[in-house]
Amino acid sequence: MGEVATSPRRSRISPEREAELYEAVLDLLREVGYEGLTMDAVAARTRSSKATLYRQWGGKPELVARALRHNKPVSMADIDTGSLRGDFEAMVARSDDCRMEEDAALMRGLFHAIHDNPELHRALRDLLIEPELTGLNELLRRAVARGEIAADNPALEYVIHMLVGGFAAREIIEERPADQEFLRSYIDAVILPALGV
Amino acid sequence: MGEVATSPRRSRISPEREAELYEAVLDLLREVGYEGLTMDAVAARTRSSKATLYRQWGGKPELVARALRHNKPVSMADIDTGSLRGDFEAMVARSDDCRMEEDAALMRGLFHAIHDNPELHRALRDLLIEPELTGLNELLRRAVARGEIAADNPALEYVIHMLVGGFAAREIIEERPADQEFLRSYIDAVILPALGV
Repeated sequence: MGEVATSPRRSRISPEREAELYEAVLDLLREVGYEGLTMDAVAARTRSSKATLYRQWGGKPELVARALRHNKPVSMADIDTGSLRGDFEAMVARSDDCRMEEDAALMRGLFHAIHDNPELHRALRDLLIEPELTGLNELLRRAVARGEIAADNPALEYVIHMLVGGFAAREIIEERPADQEFLRSYIDAVILPALGV
Repeated sequence: MGEVATSPRRSRISPEREAELYEAVLDLLREVGYEGLTMDAVAARTRSSKATLYRQWGGKPELVARALRHNKPVSMADIDTGSLRGDFEAMVARSDDCRMEEDAALMRGLFHAIHDNPELHRALRDLLIEPELTGLNELLRRAVARGEIAADNPALEYVIHMLVGGFAAREIIEERPADQEFLRSYIDAVILPALGV
């Protein structure tokens, strides 16, 4: 099952079919939440057999994590513009305002669900959080190598905290989703100065 | 009811009795969550009548918000050491490590519940979030008046975002609660540099 989780046997279904399936999973997640989502419902909605779903993804946590990864508007590992400011700008440009609002609701439900579902937590960490963190660290490593950030700048290990804070506080305190304008302003006011850029 | 929410008729019960009641509410919250908590259970656990609870607090959202406010280890409005660094240090010193771990679980449940309970959201905002924000802004205003922060520093409006990020990312990404050592390091590495201190 561990192997299936990290490498689904994609060969068995077409990329189009896979995308269609992930969209259906995300729709169901938005409608009924993680607890309410059943493999039966996914099978019915996508006209698949449950056997196929289990064979292909291993289980509900992996299927949900894969669907989120498919949907994810930003992939830090693919960003490399040649400057730190450009990399952050590319990150913001990849974030679609409408999608951020939708995703915020989705992620809120999931971050609640992970506390009762260690398997979901592990799947999200392995498939969603870790790859983004690795991409972010690589992006920062290149900025250090270019001399844009001092190698011993203590804020280097807290960039993810600053980013999460931008999204979370915008929602909890300001009660509206983070949009591109907010993110640009926040990066300029907080993240770049803390990094000494 | 709005009046009850912002000014409970404290005269009717002793401060000791009030504290006892709030502790019972928090215990119940930790045991069954916001959805599961009933006024009946609070009445039974504290040997009060439901009529008294409603007369005193107005309803479940206000009672829960008051209990949290009573429990809250940090009260920004009371902090004024004469320097920004000292104020932040006082904030950290007031945060008890064990309590932060307990509170994190509590707040996680509540931040989920607020999305289905606008009345809880309003009570938490009015009784918990707004007073802290006002206290934080006052603290920052004094630092500006003392000349420690430039009045036009764009990070001034994002201090709450940085703080929330410290707590949230520590939990979500690092999977451990924020403790005093982490907070001190984060304030030194991120918040003070962003504010140009």
